[in-house]
Amino acid sequence: MTDIQRNLSVNKSRLWNMHLEMAKIGPGVAGGNNRQALTDDDRMGRDLFKTWCEAADMTVSIDTMGNMFARRAGTNQTLPPVLAGSHLDTQPTGGRFDGVFGVLAALEAVQTMNDLGIKTERPIEIVNWTNEEGSRFGPPMMGSAVFAGALSEAEAKATKDQDGFTMGEALKEIDYVGKEPTQSRPVHAFIECHIEQGPFLEREDKAIGVVTGVQAMRWYKARVLGEARHAGTTPPSSRKDALTAAAKLVLKIDAIMQHRGDAGRCTVGIFQAFPGSPNVCPDRVEFTVDMRNPTSEELNKMDREFRRAAEDLYIDTGCGVEIEEIWFSEPVHFDQTCIDAIRRGANEHGHPWRDIMSGAGHDAVNMARIAPSAMIFIPCKDGISHNEAEYSSPEAIAAGADVLLSTLLDLAGPTT
Amino acid sequence: MTDIQRNLSVNKSRLWNMHLEMAKIGPGVAGGNNRQALTDDDRMGRDLFKTWCEAADMTVSIDTMGNMFARRAGTNQTLPPVLAGSHLDTQPTGGRFDGVFGVLAALEAVQTMNDLGIKTERPIEIVNWTNEEGSRFGPPMMGSAVFAGALSEAEAKATKDQDGFTMGEALKEIDYVGKEPTQSRPVHAFIECHIEQGPFLEREDKAIGVVTGVQAMRWYKARVLGEARHAGTTPPSSRKDALTAAAKLVLKIDAIMQHRGDAGRCTVGIFQAFPGSPNVCPDRVEFTVDMRNPTSEELNKMDREFRRAAEDLYIDTGCGVEIEEIWFSEPVHFDQTCIDAIRRGANEHGHPWRDIMSGAGHDAVNMARIAPSAMIFIPCKDGISHNEAEYSSPEAIAAGADVLLSTLLDLAGPTT
Repeated sequence: MTDIQRNLSVNKSRLWNMHLEMAKIGPGVAGGNNRQALTDDDRMGRDLFKTWCEAADMTVSIDTMGNMFARRAGTNQTLPPVLAGSHLDTQPTGGRFDGVFGVLAALEAVQTMNDLGIKTERPIEIVNWTNEEGSRFGPPMMGSAVFAGALSEAEAKATKDQDGFTMGEALKEIDYVGKEPTQSRPVHAFIECHIEQGPFLEREDKAIGVVTGVQAMRWYKARVLGEARHAGTTPPSSRKDALTAAAKLVLKIDAIMQHRGDAGRCTVGIFQAFPGSPNVCPDRVEFTVDMRNPTSEELNKMDREFRRAAEDLYIDTGCGVEIEEIWFSEPVHFDQTCIDAIRRGANEHGHPWRDIMSGAGHDAVNMARIAPSAMIFIPCKDGISHNEAEYSSPEAIAAGADVLLSTLLDLAGPTT
Repeated sequence: MTDIQRNLSVNKSRLWNMHLEMAKIGPGVAGGNNRQALTDDDRMGRDLFKTWCEAADMTVSIDTMGNMFARRAGTNQTLPPVLAGSHLDTQPTGGRFDGVFGVLAALEAVQTMNDLGIKTERPIEIVNWTNEEGSRFGPPMMGSAVFAGALSEAEAKATKDQDGFTMGEALKEIDYVGKEPTQSRPVHAFIECHIEQGPFLEREDKAIGVVTGVQAMRWYKARVLGEARHAGTTPPSSRKDALTAAAKLVLKIDAIMQHRGDAGRCTVGIFQAFPGSPNVCPDRVEFTVDMRNPTSEELNKMDREFRRAAEDLYIDTGCGVEIEEIWFSEPVHFDQTCIDAIRRGANEHGHPWRDIMSGAGHDAVNMARIAPSAMIFIPCKDGISHNEAEYSSPEAIAAGADVLLSTLLDLAGPTT
């Protein structure tokens, strides 16, 4: 790239206005968005995106999963494209930025290239993945999963919402079943912009998070077993109370997280006591545990500490603990070439940056299976996301799009 | 009384066999009983009891609440009677002893008087109170509550089961609506035998618990409020996790009980976390607290400790706690004359005894409002009750009935 190309900036107000326009579709009840995948609002959001892409001289194609690809021609059309994007769908009480920023930042980068008459050797494609949130039809990251071969299309389309309506029917209903087969094809690189959804960038005043990978994760179901006893007649010395035992275990699980500073994650999200009567000591407590860590080794240590705590609990309280691991996800390590391109982009723009591991899954996790991939995070206020209060400033968004622009030019090879 | 009268014993095998016969009606699934109030099984149990009473030359009358009174004439029929009894109904997975023992011990005491030709100055009435357990129609101790004026008959009869059937209809259905008005009338004393439902008598090898009263009780609903945050992206330093906060409070509530040795009771019976998703830190936990103590003063202290722990929790975790007291019940102190009669009875028989406070409510709590009352506890295996595994030995039962016999003779005034 030339020095000038290294110094290019996107149009901050155009990018911000696109966010505001998109946010008008499927408004929430508290300033955010409810634009769930495969609803009428999703269709309207997709239509608006398509209009914008075509206005930017891009060709929009849609695959059989409804994934949208807006292609900007390269000077060498035979080369595999560079993909950039994320998702336009939101949680039921979602924010205006989340994945939307990843799609619109890519569109803004292309618009800026158009403005400046910059051509690239490789084609650039902006992608809007279908149903990333998975709030109506699970699992999440569905469109990219089928594209990357991590989920069969038949299985994805057979998933049902609470009313028994299938994902395939819903996709037809909004008229977004495309002609392209949904399958892996040569992709030179995939870059996804996204808000951090955590507090680190804001706390450390970094404009850019260079996402080097996604944490490893284990999910468990745990069951603590005691004895149901009469609350009035049973003194402490005769109790085997599953709830107080489970409370001790919850605090030990929390300690497993706490003594790793900000590197570990342990969350007990579902927790219920049985039989559930005010004057009966619970004989059974069931809860889930979500544990995450950047490395498998450390996550394995956390797993061992959890199991040891459960054994100690039996010695301490007489209440046994059954632990069932229900999900394990390896850590994802993004592509070094993509990571280096993003770091260079941040340096060129003088944006303070840091490497960061993502705590949540994203479409880039699926894409990393089949193509060199990485992500660009930007700060969001108080780390709040999946919440209508979610907010990233126009400046934060423009900084992320600047870095994406540089990264795309780097990877797609500018030719002017 | 003469020395011979002080030395009388009931017929242990007859008393045990009555328990076994009664247990055949409404058998449970695991060796216990499911003879819930106002079912066909309850009717059959009542019928059997009536047959036995009439065979023992007693006159059975029934009041409009279905309470059954089997009267043995006194030599002075104008004197108010001494009442003894409890209830024949059981929990859905109840035991064979519970209140049944209180009814059958009284019947056995009368049968023994008959065998020996003992007359009393005052009439003796054996009572079977309707719906003590309250498992199908709440509240519990219903029949005695209406009798003692603690609950209106109309209100009691209007209570509905899960199918919308009223208590009044159910009572008609089993044909146990009697002619006697259900209302307080002069009663010289009320003595209720019951299994302890706790571990103390067995642990200390005491045959008899002289029940001096019933613990004071407070019930609360508590709500801990935090912030819902993403389990993957939110580090410990950014969390306000309502569940870990609530777990700390549960352990403090447990400590309020533990440092009172076996004198206090604190139970968290219902406990649930919201929104209840494996990868979201809970923003809200709701739970109940059941606190009991023999004295109001000490229960008030426990209340203050609980509220202070909730305030400390806010300082410690940032999670607020809302506490709502939903029930307060004063301690009940039984009648000294009745208590003394029971102690004398135990001493006369050489049965080791101790004073004890009841942790649970009983019909005697209602009767204490209108008549001198007290209770006799006997040990039950491992303190287990409201459970089909509930067990008291033939010897334990006979010892309790021996003491009841002496107590009734003491209070009713033998005349032979």
